[in-house]
This record gives sequence, C-alpha cells and structure tokens, in this order.
Amino acid sequence: MDRSARAEAGEDDKADGRAAVLEAAARAFMQDGYAATSIDDVAGLLGATKGRVYYYYRSKADLFFDVHRESMRQNMEGAGRIALEDAPALDRLERMVRAHALLMMTHLPFQRVSVLGVEMHLAGSTTPRQRKTLNEIVELRDAYEQRFVDVISQGIAEGAIRPLDVKMVVRGLLGALNWITVWYRPREGETDADRARMADELTTYLINGLRRDEA
Amino acid sequence: MDRSARAEAGEDDKADGRAAVLEAAARAFMQDGYAATSIDDVAGLLGATKGRVYYYYRSKADLFFDVHRESMRQNMEGAGRIALEDAPALDRLERMVRAHALLMMTHLPFQRVSVLGVEMHLAGSTTPRQRKTLNEIVELRDAYEQRFVDVISQGIAEGAIRPLDVKMVVRGLLGALNWITVWYRPREGETDADRARMADELTTYLINGLRRDEA
Repeated sequence: MDRSARAEAGEDDKADGRAAVLEAAARAFMQDGYAATSIDDVAGLLGATKGRVYYYYRSKADLFFDVHRESMRQNMEGAGRIALEDAPALDRLERMVRAHALLMMTHLPFQRVSVLGVEMHLAGSTTPRQRKTLNEIVELRDAYEQRFVDVISQGIAEGAIRPLDVKMVVRGLLGALNWITVWYRPREGETDADRARMADELTTYLINGLRRDEA
Repeated sequence: MDRSARAEAGEDDKADGRAAVLEAAARAFMQDGYAATSIDDVAGLLGATKGRVYYYYRSKADLFFDVHRESMRQNMEGAGRIALEDAPALDRLERMVRAHALLMMTHLPFQRVSVLGVEMHLAGSTTPRQRKTLNEIVELRDAYEQRFVDVISQGIAEGAIRPLDVKMVVRGLLGALNWITVWYRPREGETDADRARMADELTTYLINGLRRDEA
C-alpha cells in the first residue's frame, strides 16, 4: 500500500468511525430525547469511551446537528433525487412518496431525531453558531420539500394531478409520512415485505388524493 | 345570592382560574419545550405569582398532563363527537377532518403540547403515578382515533370509501393533520376565512384519497 492508499484507508476508517458515533447518537436521542441524553450515553451505546465520541464531535449539539443533516442527506439521496429523473411527474411522485415512507422506517433513529430537531429549532434558545447550522439544516429541508412542490406542479401541468394549493398539499403529504416516526416501531420478525406493505398502503392513499380523475 | 349560588359562583371562579393557568402553561410549553419551562415561566405568562399556579397544580408534570388531557377533550368535543351523528359516513368523516384541522390552528398551544406529549411518553422515564396518568391520556387518544376508524369502516360498508387498511390510513390522515402544529403559526391579521381555506384544502386532499370512485 503506498502512502496515498494508506491515507485513503485511514480516511475510510475515520468515516466509518464517525458514522458509528452518529448512529449511536441517533439511537440515544431517539430513546431519551435531546435534553436527557449525555455524551456518556452515546459512548455507552457505542461500547466505547467518551474520548471516542469527542474525537469526532466537540459537543452534544454538534452531534445532534449532524444526525439531523444525515437524515436530510438520506431523504435527498433516497427520495428527493427521483424528482430529477425522466418520467411522468405522477410516477416520480409516487416513487418519492414510497421511498420517503420507507426511509422513515429503515432509518428510524435518524428520522425520528430529525422530527425532534424541528421541536428544538422552534423552541429557539441556541448560540449564534448553532443558529447558523440550524439555518443550513432548514435550507436542506426546504430544498427537499421543493422537490415535491416541483414534481406536483409538473403533474398539474401534465394534467395528471388536479389543480390544488401545492404548498399546502405538500405539507399534508409530508406530514402524513413524517408522522410514521411517531407510531412506527419495528416488530420482532418484521420483514422488508411488511414494511413495503405499509409504505404501499400510505402511498396509494396519498397519491389517490391528488389525481385529476376524481369526484 | 344564597349559599349554594355563592358556592357555585366560587366553583366557576375556580374553574376559570384553573383554565387561565392551563392556557399559560400550554403557551409556555409550546414556546420553550417541556424541559426548559419552569413554574416561574408559567406564572410570568399568567401575570401572577408562582403561588397562583401551585394553588391549582402541584407540579410541572401535572400541568403538562392536564394540558394534554384538555387537548384530547377539545378533539373529542370538537371533532370526535361528529362520528356519532346521523349522516352518511363520508359526510361525517369530512366534517371530522375539517374540524380537527381547525382545532390544530385555533387551539395551537394545547395541540402543540399534545404532540410534544407523545415525545415525552415515548421517551419513558416517569414515575408510576405519572405513567398511570399517561396511560389514561393514551386511552383518550385511542378512543378518539377509534372514532375515525369506525366512521371509515362505516364508509366502506356504505360503499362510499374504497376497501383499505383502515388503521394505516387513519395514521396517515391524522398525521397529516397533526403535522399542522409543526408548520402552522398564526399570521398578523389572519382571519377565520384564511384558516377555513387551509383546512378546506387539506380536507379535500385527505378525503379524495379515500373515495371509491377513483383510479
């Protein structure tokens, strides 16, 4: 292994280490809420020392923000990017809705914390640096929501979706999906097919409400 | 005024006093979150002393639970009772959905805290007495959700609603509506007509997805 390959392997290790810390933090925040979680709790779930956590993150708030940012990345990567594909708008939207529903289940700790993040943001009381980071996270969320707004607008232009208040409907649509993090907890022995069935049921409902060919 | 009338007036005053404390608590919890709110904050919003708050409630947790219970009462009274009226199921459901949407806006502090209450409940870490109260609140919520399950089941039996997984759809429907407490904040000069327009848009969307006569 030459020096740059070694350096690269080191970078990969570092990225893996960071991802493991972040996963543990997401689980800790989900379990006990932001206020009640300590760096010790995160280290405990990680099966490591506090030093390991502090190697990657300098504070609980930084961990919280990065969990939030990672959830936004998951959404944009897993569902938002579908908006840019070349297909009829209603088909793209249907796949985006299903993908978002599944993301809520398969990445539950991250997505759950993302919902808690909204709370924290609304509650205010942060430092200037934290507010800057929060603003960046809000921008990521807005960009993600905009993908849904765009695709629904295209669906209306294509005649597949009835004329409606796009922003209001996107709030309802994403609210119904984000609410999954409130009621969903994986069951013993649950399979991908079980999750797919739940996502399909919600998707059918939420897409049907948009169709033009309705009463 | 005879003695019983005076006693009754006293009871009314006490109920009004209690309602005012509860309203202040709901606003304080909404503004700062449960953890960051003190009895002092509630007294401050009320424009009264801590003693006034303690006259009605012995702890912050008790206040929180009563805010939650009041929000459940508002929902059952304002929307849930429509389920028992004599009318086609889809008509009743449509009025329940619109009423729930409007309740989220007009009683925002209570309803917002009710959503936060879910968080606290999920996070665990309460005393046995608090867990008993939480279980009662969860029973109230379940009874309320059951009204929606019943009416949709009746709508399917009447042939107006397509066959679907009723519990899953109720979760989507109420999630879309409860999410209002995340994005909605009253605007300067907003009117009842503005709120009605938002509620109507969401209601149309959420009811259309259920109709039998769809693709």
